[in-house]
Amino acid sequence: MSVATGTLVYEKVALIGLGLIGSSIGHGIKRAGLAKTVSGFARSAETRARALEIGFVDSVHDTAKEAVVDADLIILCVPVGALGKVASEIEPMLKKGATITDVGSVKSAVVRDVGPFVPEGVHFIPGHPLAGTEESGPDAGFAELFDERWCILTPVPGTDKSAEAQLVSFWEGLGSKVDVMDAQHHDVVLAVTSHVPHLIAYNIVGTATDLEEVTQSEVVKYSASGFRDFTRIAASDPTMWRDVFLNNKEGVLEVLGRFSEDLAVLQRAIRWGDGDLLFDLFTRTRAVRRSIIDAGQETAAPNFGRTKPDGDEEDGEA
Amino acid sequence: MSVATGTLVYEKVALIGLGLIGSSIGHGIKRAGLAKTVSGFARSAETRARALEIGFVDSVHDTAKEAVVDADLIILCVPVGALGKVASEIEPMLKKGATITDVGSVKSAVVRDVGPFVPEGVHFIPGHPLAGTEESGPDAGFAELFDERWCILTPVPGTDKSAEAQLVSFWEGLGSKVDVMDAQHHDVVLAVTSHVPHLIAYNIVGTATDLEEVTQSEVVKYSASGFRDFTRIAASDPTMWRDVFLNNKEGVLEVLGRFSEDLAVLQRAIRWGDGDLLFDLFTRTRAVRRSIIDAGQETAAPNFGRTKPDGDEEDGEA
Repeated sequence: MSVATGTLVYEKVALIGLGLIGSSIGHGIKRAGLAKTVSGFARSAETRARALEIGFVDSVHDTAKEAVVDADLIILCVPVGALGKVASEIEPMLKKGATITDVGSVKSAVVRDVGPFVPEGVHFIPGHPLAGTEESGPDAGFAELFDERWCILTPVPGTDKSAEAQLVSFWEGLGSKVDVMDAQHHDVVLAVTSHVPHLIAYNIVGTATDLEEVTQSEVVKYSASGFRDFTRIAASDPTMWRDVFLNNKEGVLEVLGRFSEDLAVLQRAIRWGDGDLLFDLFTRTRAVRRSIIDAGQETAAPNFGRTKPDGDEEDGEA
Repeated sequence: MSVATGTLVYEKVALIGLGLIGSSIGHGIKRAGLAKTVSGFARSAETRARALEIGFVDSVHDTAKEAVVDADLIILCVPVGALGKVASEIEPMLKKGATITDVGSVKSAVVRDVGPFVPEGVHFIPGHPLAGTEESGPDAGFAELFDERWCILTPVPGTDKSAEAQLVSFWEGLGSKVDVMDAQHHDVVLAVTSHVPHLIAYNIVGTATDLEEVTQSEVVKYSASGFRDFTRIAASDPTMWRDVFLNNKEGVLEVLGRFSEDLAVLQRAIRWGDGDLLFDLFTRTRAVRRSIIDAGQETAAPNFGRTKPDGDEEDGEA
């Protein structure tokens, strides 16, 4: 873990949105001493009070506008669908030389929605930390969330290089590894590694529960043979994921088209009994898991190291 | 766990195939005293010797034919593709009143391949224990494999009811819960809960590695955001799974057709920005996971309770 302990990166950071991600960033800033002061805004007074109480912000404000006064770094941690509105509100208060960033799961839409409200002289560097849990709210956050995780930054063309380097240091200070790419590429990559996998999982769970021949009770009973792994992803937050799909249309449709083409080839192979084609694919895909484990992005324990409900080691057919 | 300790169910059991499943059945029989004697056959002399050495069989034989002499229960634990050949070999030696069963992941094909070789007076009750690990061979087996797991039996029409009840007791003695259904229904149900989920996982891993725009290195790096869950299933044994798809064509094609129809609806909703349709599906699918946990078929721990490679609790974006 690369924590630049005691290294100040920004004087003042403003957190707009104080849920899981905003609160975790606040904790991380404190842990590593990345800023002198942290201001916060959330829509609900209760959340603002809780954030101050927990202590991952130094001050809270009734409006986003007030929170960003004199801030060197503004991090938008609200749902992707709300970004444009927030950006239009705070635009007049952004100081020259400040950097504005976000944490959303899509990037081209963020450039589209926030970009128009970024004044001359303010650095606009959208971002996406690949980290999170199933929890929500100011109590959910913790400093270690971003440790060893990748954070992708998608600075707009022409962005000042030292502003970019500063934001990279900030995320490294939070424990992350940082990659920089353009927004459109981000959206295609995440369509592959996150968005389409989620969509496929949602779909198969939906299909399974719609079959007249197979009862939902049977699906549940026999789920340990492969199906249940999909249900975890399909239990993800509906609002967040609706917004992801509505805001990464291009990336998702492109990857989905490829997925469907490839699936048609498999379907045909099954219909015509082409065992070799199936065998070759299945052999090729085994190697991918090995490389994910070797890259430190997954546990090597069989069956995810999953334990039975009563605590014993679980072994599944899948 | 319902173990009928010390309850003899069959005098002599013959295990044809001594890998993970065969060996686990052998161990389970010993643990619960379900048979007086267990004979075994495997193609390799080494495996036969090892089985005897470990002690989950009382005798081993050079041919399947010899192993089944005087057996009251014959369990075929070889790959689905090999069943017909084995059945034709042992046919002459099956004693009247014996029961023949198997453990394959598909059932209609087993009825088709083994059925013709079952003599008059022998009970044919195909079976499928929904249990297993990623391991193989005689050393892989253990008595607890079937505990709390479902075993599905698909007796052919007209099967003697007391022979069926006896096999049910046997599987309950191994720790399982037993359901009885017809073979065609089994194949559709397992197409939903196991076969098509595996196919989808194989497909998405294949698609992900075929995109020109996204490197395999990127797919691996950013895999923690959802993709990696799929890679586990896509690391399953290529031979076994090739045989499953070749032998459950009808069930798989039916479910695959539904899956693709439903996916096209989602694709269209994304193209046209139909947020409500997406939101409604995502809300509906959340409930399925809850019921799987409540049915004792899954851990409630977030993220499967997965630990980071260095042993710390892992939190993923998905």
